[in-house]
Amino acid sequence: MSDRELPGIVVTGASGRMGQMLARLLLESETARLVGVLERPGHDWIGKDIGEAMGGTAVGVTVSGDAVATIAQAQAVIDFTSPAASVAFAELTAQARAVHVIGTTGFEDADLVPLKAAARHAPIIRAGNMSLGVNLLMGLTRKVAAALGEDWDIEVVEAHHRHKVDAPSGTALMLGEAAAEGRGASLADLRTPAREGITGPRETGSIGFSAIRGGNVVGEHDVIFAADGERIVLRHLATDRAIFARGAIRAALWGQDKGPGEYDMADVLGLG
Amino acid sequence: MSDRELPGIVVTGASGRMGQMLARLLLESETARLVGVLERPGHDWIGKDIGEAMGGTAVGVTVSGDAVATIAQAQAVIDFTSPAASVAFAELTAQARAVHVIGTTGFEDADLVPLKAAARHAPIIRAGNMSLGVNLLMGLTRKVAAALGEDWDIEVVEAHHRHKVDAPSGTALMLGEAAAEGRGASLADLRTPAREGITGPRETGSIGFSAIRGGNVVGEHDVIFAADGERIVLRHLATDRAIFARGAIRAALWGQDKGPGEYDMADVLGLG
Amino acid sequence: MSDRELPGIVVTGASGRMGQMLARLLLESETARLVGVLERPGHDWIGKDIGEAMGGTAVGVTVSGDAVATIAQAQAVIDFTSPAASVAFAELTAQARAVHVIGTTGFEDADLVPLKAAARHAPIIRAGNMSLGVNLLMGLTRKVAAALGEDWDIEVVEAHHRHKVDAPSGTALMLGEAAAEGRGASLADLRTPAREGITGPRETGSIGFSAIRGGNVVGEHDVIFAADGERIVLRHLATDRAIFARGAIRAALWGQDKGPGEYDMADVLGLG
Amino acid sequence: MSDRELPGIVVTGASGRMGQMLARLLLESETARLVGVLERPGHDWIGKDIGEAMGGTAVGVTVSGDAVATIAQAQAVIDFTSPAASVAFAELTAQARAVHVIGTTGFEDADLVPLKAAARHAPIIRAGNMSLGVNLLMGLTRKVAAALGEDWDIEVVEAHHRHKVDAPSGTALMLGEAAAEGRGASLADLRTPAREGITGPRETGSIGFSAIRGGNVVGEHDVIFAADGERIVLRHLATDRAIFARGAIRAALWGQDKGPGEYDMADVLGLG
Repeated sequence: MSDRELPGIVVTGASGRMGQMLARLLLESETARLVGVLERPGHDWIGKDIGEAMGGTAVGVTVSGDAVATIAQAQAVIDFTSPAASVAFAELTAQARAVHVIGTTGFEDADLVPLKAAARHAPIIRAGNMSLGVNLLMGLTRKVAAALGEDWDIEVVEAHHRHKVDAPSGTALMLGEAAAEGRGASLADLRTPAREGITGPRETGSIGFSAIRGGNVVGEHDVIFAADGERIVLRHLATDRAIFARGAIRAALWGQDKGPGEYDMADVLGLG
Repeated sequence: MSDRELPGIVVTGASGRMGQMLARLLLESETARLVGVLERPGHDWIGKDIGEAMGGTAVGVTVSGDAVATIAQAQAVIDFTSPAASVAFAELTAQARAVHVIGTTGFEDADLVPLKAAARHAPIIRAGNMSLGVNLLMGLTRKVAAALGEDWDIEVVEAHHRHKVDAPSGTALMLGEAAAEGRGASLADLRTPAREGITGPRETGSIGFSAIRGGNVVGEHDVIFAADGERIVLRHLATDRAIFARGAIRAALWGQDKGPGEYDMADVLGLG
Repeated sequence: MSDRELPGIVVTGASGRMGQMLARLLLESETARLVGVLERPGHDWIGKDIGEAMGGTAVGVTVSGDAVATIAQAQAVIDFTSPAASVAFAELTAQARAVHVIGTTGFEDADLVPLKAAARHAPIIRAGNMSLGVNLLMGLTRKVAAALGEDWDIEVVEAHHRHKVDAPSGTALMLGEAAAEGRGASLADLRTPAREGITGPRETGSIGFSAIRGGNVVGEHDVIFAADGERIVLRHLATDRAIFARGAIRAALWGQDKGPGEYDMADVLGLG
Repeated sequence: MSDRELPGIVVTGASGRMGQMLARLLLESETARLVGVLERPGHDWIGKDIGEAMGGTAVGVTVSGDAVATIAQAQAVIDFTSPAASVAFAELTAQARAVHVIGTTGFEDADLVPLKAAARHAPIIRAGNMSLGVNLLMGLTRKVAAALGEDWDIEVVEAHHRHKVDAPSGTALMLGEAAAEGRGASLADLRTPAREGITGPRETGSIGFSAIRGGNVVGEHDVIFAADGERIVLRHLATDRAIFARGAIRAALWGQDKGPGEYDMADVLGLG
C-alpha cells in the first residue's frame, strides 16, 4: 500500500496534550496518515505548520480553523475535546461518511441524542478510556463481581495527578458500574459516599470509592474484592498517555470497514 | 436436618496446622460434623480426645491410628498430608465410597495412577490451592493471557512466610501454567529461570517468576501483564489459612451427590 | 526468676477481642504472668474462670467485676476499653503505683486532665497504635516530610475491615500529624476533606486521606509522597492483632522501672 | 545574572537516551546552559546541530567528537556513558577544573583509582542513581535496618523494563548494601541467591532480592521488612527518566563552589 492510500486522519484540539500526542504518533505511523489538524477559530496556532507549532520542523500539515473543509477530506476524525465541540464534529463527520472516534468525556444525556443521530450515517466509536488494559479490566470486573457473593466487599481506588479536578475519575466510575452490573444492579443504588468521620460499619453489597491525588500520576485503578481471609485485586496502571492515543488510532483503523452505528472499545478490542 | 444426618467427615494429619484448623472448623460447623481424626500410628496424640490434644476441652472424638476403621464410617475424608499418605488414603476412601478431598501437594506423575484408579469408585477432588480467590484468579489469568498479545510481558510474583522451603510456590506455578495455556503453550516452554547476574534482555513471550520470603505471610500472588505504557495486575492475598480449610469443607459437601471421577476446585466453585 | 516473681498483669475488658488476646498471650508468657481479668459488673463472664469463658480449660484466674481489689494486686494494668473506663482505671492504677498501659482510643481533651493527674503517681503509657512498625513509620514520616519540599504531595491511604465505624483511622490521622509536623505545621491547617465531585486541583502543601473498607483487613497504612516523575511510599501492613497485644505487654514490662509520668510507644521502643 | 553567566555544561553520549534528555532539559534551563555535546569520533551525529539531530530545530550547539576542546570550555560535564569513557573524561574534566557528574554504572575497582586521582584536582560527584527519592530511601533503609532486630526479614524487590540485561539492578544492590550497613554487616555476607527449587527455610538475618522484568517500567524498588504479624515497606517508584537528568543537573550546579574531592548524591541533597 502506498502512503497515499493509508487512511487519512484528522485530529481535533491540535494544541492540547492529547491533540499533540495524536499528531506526533500519526506523523510516525505506518498504518495511517495525518491529513488535517483543527483548532478553534482564533487560536494562535491557526495557519501554522503543526510540526513547527509543536516546536519541531515543518511537516506539511497546516493547523486549520475550518472544520467543514478539513473533515471533508478525512477517513476518520479523532476527537478529545469538549462535549459541545464533539457534538458539532459528529454532524460534519457523519456528512463525510468518516469514522468519528470520540475520547471526550463529560457528556450529558442530552448530548447523546445528536450523537445517536449522527451514528445513523457513519460509525461513532466512543469510550471514556481508550486503553486496551482498562477496557479489559472492565470486563474482568463484571465477571468477578458476578462470580463472588456479597460477602466480598467491592472497593474502587484510583490515583491521578495533582491537576485533576474531579473525583472519583470517570474510569473509576465506569469500573464501579461494571461491578454493579455484575451484581445485577445499578451503581447509583450501590455507591457509597466518600468516607469521613463516623460512617458506621460498611453496608453489605455497597461499592466504595477512594481518590488519591499527587505528582504527575497518569492514572492507576484498583478494583478490590475483599472477603474474610482473602482478597482479589484487579489493577491497571497507566504510565504513558500515549496508550490512549494509540487506542484511538487503533479504533479509527478498526472502524474503516464498519457500517454506521455506535461502538465502544470493547467492540474494537474484540472483548465483547 | 438433625445433627446426626449431617455428612460425617474424617480429617487426616490431625496434629498438623491444617488438620487442627479443619477439626476446629468442623466442630463448629452447622453443615458438616467431625466423625474421626487420624494420625500416623505411634504419634503421641493417638488415643487422646482431639479437643484436649489441641489444648481445649474434650469434644468426644478420639485421635485414631486405624485408618481402615475410621474412614469406613466417613461420608468424606479431608486430607492435607504427603503424597504417599494420600495415595494410601485414596484406596480406603474409595472402598468406603466416600468423597476424598486432597489438598496435599508435591505429587509425582507416578502417584497420579493410583489416584485415577480410586476415582473410578468415588469422587476425588484435588487442588493445589483450595481458596475461592486463587481458583478464580487462575481462570482470569488464562483469559487475560489469551486476550493480550506477546507485547504484554507476563510475570508471576509470590510472597510467603520464612519457613517455606520451595520456590516458586505451587500456586505460582499453577498461575504460570494458566497463563501459558492462555497463550496456547506449555509453561515448560515459556518459563524463565530466576534472574541473577547478566541475564540479557527479556525474551519475548517468556514467563518470569519471583519469590519473596519473610515474616509469617500466608500467601500473596501477583500475575503481572506489562506492556509499553500500561500494566494489568491480577492479585490474590490470603491472610488466613482458614480459607483453605473452608474451601476443603465446601468441596467435601459439594461432592456428596457427585459420581465417581476426578474433580478440581473450578468444578466445586462452578468456575469451569 | 521463679514464675511467682514475674510482673503480675491485670487485663481489662476481658471478653473483648483485645482482652482475650492479651489473656491468651499472658497465660503463655515467660516474662509476665496474668494475675487478674476484669469485666464490667453484671457481665455474664463474671465469676467464671477466664480459660473456660474463652472456650478452653480452666487456668485458675477468675473474671472479676471488682476493679479496686483486682488492680490492687497488679504491677501493671493493660487496658483497651473506652475513654470513660480508662479514666476510672487510671485512678485505681495510680493508687496501686502500677504501670497503666492504655490502648484505648477516642479520648476528648477533657479526658486527658485526669490521666495527667494519675501520671503524677505512676507511669502511664498511652498510644493510639501499639505496634512497633507503625510507631517506627511515624518517625520516618516526620523525617521524610521535613526533607522533601512542597513539590512532593502527601497522601495517607488506609484500609481496614468492614466493621470499622470511623474514617480515616486514628493511626492515619497520627501519620498525617507526623507529616504536618515535619513541615512545621499542624494537620488541622493542611488536611483536605475526602474527595468527591468537583474538587478543583490539589492544593499545594495539603495532606489528603483515603479510607478503604472491606473484608477483615486488620490494618494497612500508606504514606505517599508524590512528585513529578517519582514517588516514595512508606507502608505498614498489620496482619495479626497480636502485634498490638505484644506491644502492650512489652510496654508494661518496660514501665516496671520507670518513674511516674506520661509515656508513649516511641519511648518504649527507644525511637525518640 | 545574564544568560552568558550561567554555568556552562557539556553533555557526553549525546545520542543516547540520557544524553538527549539532558540536552533538552539544559536547552530549557534557566539555571544552566548547554555549551557542548560529545559523541564518540565517527558517530554520524558529529558535526550536526544537536537540536536537528534530535529531530527538532537548530539550537546553535554542534555535536563534537573532540573531547579535549569541548570540555576545556565547561564549568561542568554530565556523563552517563561507560566506565572506560568516564575514566577518560575524568582526566580532561580535572584539567579544566570543572565538575564531573558521573551517572555511569558498572565500574570495576580498578576504574576507581584514576577517578580518585582526578578528584584531587576538581570535584567528582558519582552516584548509581541520581534521583532524590532513591537517595532518600537509601538513608531510610539504613535507619530502619538498624532499628529492627533480625526477627524482621529484609527483602529487596525491583521491577524494570524488558530491555534491562542485569539483575538485580544496581540500585537494588545499593539498597541492600544500605540495609546490611544498618545491621553492621556487609551485603556480601548477607545476600541470598535468587530463589528457585528447594531452597530450605529462609536464613535468619539474610537479605533476599527479586527482579521483575516487563514493559517499559522505568524503575521500581521495594525494601520489605517482614516480621510475624506486620510488615514495613519502603517503596520508590520512578515513572520518568527526567528525574535522573534533573538530579544530575542539580549536582552540577551544587558542585560549582565545592573544592576537589569525591562526592555522592547524599552530599548534594544534604541527606548526610
